[in-house]
Amino acid sequence: MAAISINVSTVKPLGDRVFVKVSASEEKTAGGILLPDTAKEKPQIGEIVTVGPGKRNDDGSRSEPEVKVGDKVLYSKYAGTDIKLGGEDYVLLSEKDILAVVD
Amino acid sequence: MAAISINVSTVKPLGDRVFVKVSASEEKTAGGILLPDTAKEKPQIGEIVTVGPGKRNDDGSRSEPEVKVGDKVLYSKYAGTDIKLGGEDYVLLSEKDILAVVD
Amino acid sequence: MAAISINVSTVKPLGDRVFVKVSASEEKTAGGILLPDTAKEKPQIGEIVTVGPGKRNDDGSRSEPEVKVGDKVLYSKYAGTDIKLGGEDYVLLSEKDILAVVD
Amino acid sequence: MAAISINVSTVKPLGDRVFVKVSASEEKTAGGILLPDTAKEKPQIGEIVTVGPGKRNDDGSRSEPEVKVGDKVLYSKYAGTDIKLGGEDYVLLSEKDILAVVD
Amino acid sequence: MAAISINVSTVKPLGDRVFVKVSASEEKTAGGILLPDTAKEKPQIGEIVTVGPGKRNDDGSRSEPEVKVGDKVLYSKYAGTDIKLGGEDYVLLSEKDILAVVD
Amino acid sequence: MAAISINVSTVKPLGDRVFVKVSASEEKTAGGILLPDTAKEKPQIGEIVTVGPGKRNDDGSRSEPEVKVGDKVLYSKYAGTDIKLGGEDYVLLSEKDILAVVD
Amino acid sequence: MAAISINVSTVKPLGDRVFVKVSASEEKTAGGILLPDTAKEKPQIGEIVTVGPGKRNDDGSRSEPEVKVGDKVLYSKYAGTDIKLGGEDYVLLSEKDILAVVD
Repeated sequence: MAAISINVSTVKPLGDRVFVKVSASEEKTAGGILLPDTAKEKPQIGEIVTVGPGKRNDDGSRSEPEVKVGDKVLYSKYAGTDIKLGGEDYVLLSEKDILAVVD
Repeated sequence: MAAISINVSTVKPLGDRVFVKVSASEEKTAGGILLPDTAKEKPQIGEIVTVGPGKRNDDGSRSEPEVKVGDKVLYSKYAGTDIKLGGEDYVLLSEKDILAVVD
Repeated sequence: MAAISINVSTVKPLGDRVFVKVSASEEKTAGGILLPDTAKEKPQIGEIVTVGPGKRNDDGSRSEPEVKVGDKVLYSKYAGTDIKLGGEDYVLLSEKDILAVVD
Repeated sequence: MAAISINVSTVKPLGDRVFVKVSASEEKTAGGILLPDTAKEKPQIGEIVTVGPGKRNDDGSRSEPEVKVGDKVLYSKYAGTDIKLGGEDYVLLSEKDILAVVD
Repeated sequence: MAAISINVSTVKPLGDRVFVKVSASEEKTAGGILLPDTAKEKPQIGEIVTVGPGKRNDDGSRSEPEVKVGDKVLYSKYAGTDIKLGGEDYVLLSEKDILAVVD
Repeated sequence: MAAISINVSTVKPLGDRVFVKVSASEEKTAGGILLPDTAKEKPQIGEIVTVGPGKRNDDGSRSEPEVKVGDKVLYSKYAGTDIKLGGEDYVLLSEKDILAVVD
Repeated sequence: MAAISINVSTVKPLGDRVFVKVSASEEKTAGGILLPDTAKEKPQIGEIVTVGPGKRNDDGSRSEPEVKVGDKVLYSKYAGTDIKLGGEDYVLLSEKDILAVVD
């Protein structure tokens, strides 16, 4: 097996997953938002890079994703799987872990 | 990616989520209400700022939200995700975490 | 946002929730009932003040509540959310946490 | 609110619950039965006093209860909610916690 | 309430439960079987004395039991509720806790 | 009750269970396979001796088993119930605990 | 029972499982990807060798797998069952544990 070469455009999420570029923390306060670190879910902001085909229903059909490429989203910091790619932080999230679109 | 600029009007909750402005604690006793701090769920009062499109059902339809913008609501303090925006406290809640409308 | 003013008549429970006035403990022994404090669920008595619209079913219809305003009910002390209002104790309960009507 | 007066005949269980008079422990060995105290579920014997209307199904219909008033039943000691009434022990049980009818 | 008198023939299991006479341990090795005591489920052998009417389905119908009176069965030692009756060991099991018929 | 005599051919698994003869550990390395002992599920190899009638569906029909007698299978070592019979190791497994057929 | 001989081509996953060859860690950084070791799910890259027949639905039909032989996939390191075969690392995964196709 040859070496696997990955870049942002080759990541295709499965099912209801989305691929999100994590926003740097200085950007987060730029708009006046402050994400408090409490005992509750910790929010994080990112921009959607790729959207999966949607959740497969029991009858084989798919639920249309509620978000689209380019959406800035708020999600729980503890959700999903972190990936570092070319020095940037990304996260693979289930759509249900996205709390809100923020732009 | 440019800096993300967020303000209250740009937060669009997904699914059955609502965006709620947390009431300051002096307001909470104004009406004579006292929210005891017990081992059980801790109640909190807030006003709904934005309502998501509603919970998506298995058949793709949506359940109409039971609350609307402007409703004063009682919810569990431990539910949802806290956000501070322009010096004010907000919370993103699932509609099922709202216990009652209180006005 | 103006101060939120709450009184008993303004609390409208959502879904299958009911708003219950907790009975004072001297009343509990008046009828000869004794609610033992065991390792199991601890029972409590109260009177229903307001009933929510009923549990929303998956098809959007609602299940009619099994209790009505004025019913004296027995419920688990550990269920629901406590609220103090005008010096009186109230609790917001899901209907499923009500064990029995007792009058 | 007037004092709540409760007696056995006024307890009306909701849903699939039944109201059971706990048998005194000397009765339990009378018939030769011995209920061992193991790490597993601890059985207890009682007599059904009142039966609720039955479990409400998702379509609004009710499942007919499998037990009736007067049935002597075996149930798990750790199930349900204990109530003492007029010096006697009672328990509010879900029908699913009843293991067997024993007469 | 008169003393409850119980014997084997009066125990009528509810739903999908079966009433099983536990085999004495000397019988268990007679056929060459050895039931190891591991961190996993501990098997036990018994003979079915009474079979309940079968599991009630959501539509009110019942699933026919897969076992019958007289079947020798293998079940998990940690399942069900132990009862001692006339000096003999019995157990009330859900049919799903029976692993195999062994004769 | 007479002594229960068990041998391999008399074990009839219920539902979706299968009766599997555990392969001796020297056989496991014969084909070059090495089953690492990690914090994750520990795999084990065995040969199916008897197959139950299949999982009963909610409508009373049965799902046809995906494996058959004689299949060599890989399963999680922590799944199922161990039985020693005539000096040999056996295990009663749910079909869902079988990871793959390996021949 | 003869010794079981296993090689890559004889492993046939059941249901929605896939058989995946784990990529060596030097390959993982070749494309610039870095898989951080956080408290969250730990990602791992591999190539699909064999795909099972698909998840069996409640009505007996099967859901078509979303991945195919040869796909390079990202999955959670803590998912599935590790197998070493001929000095190489493999893993048996449920399709739902695959996060994304990465080529």
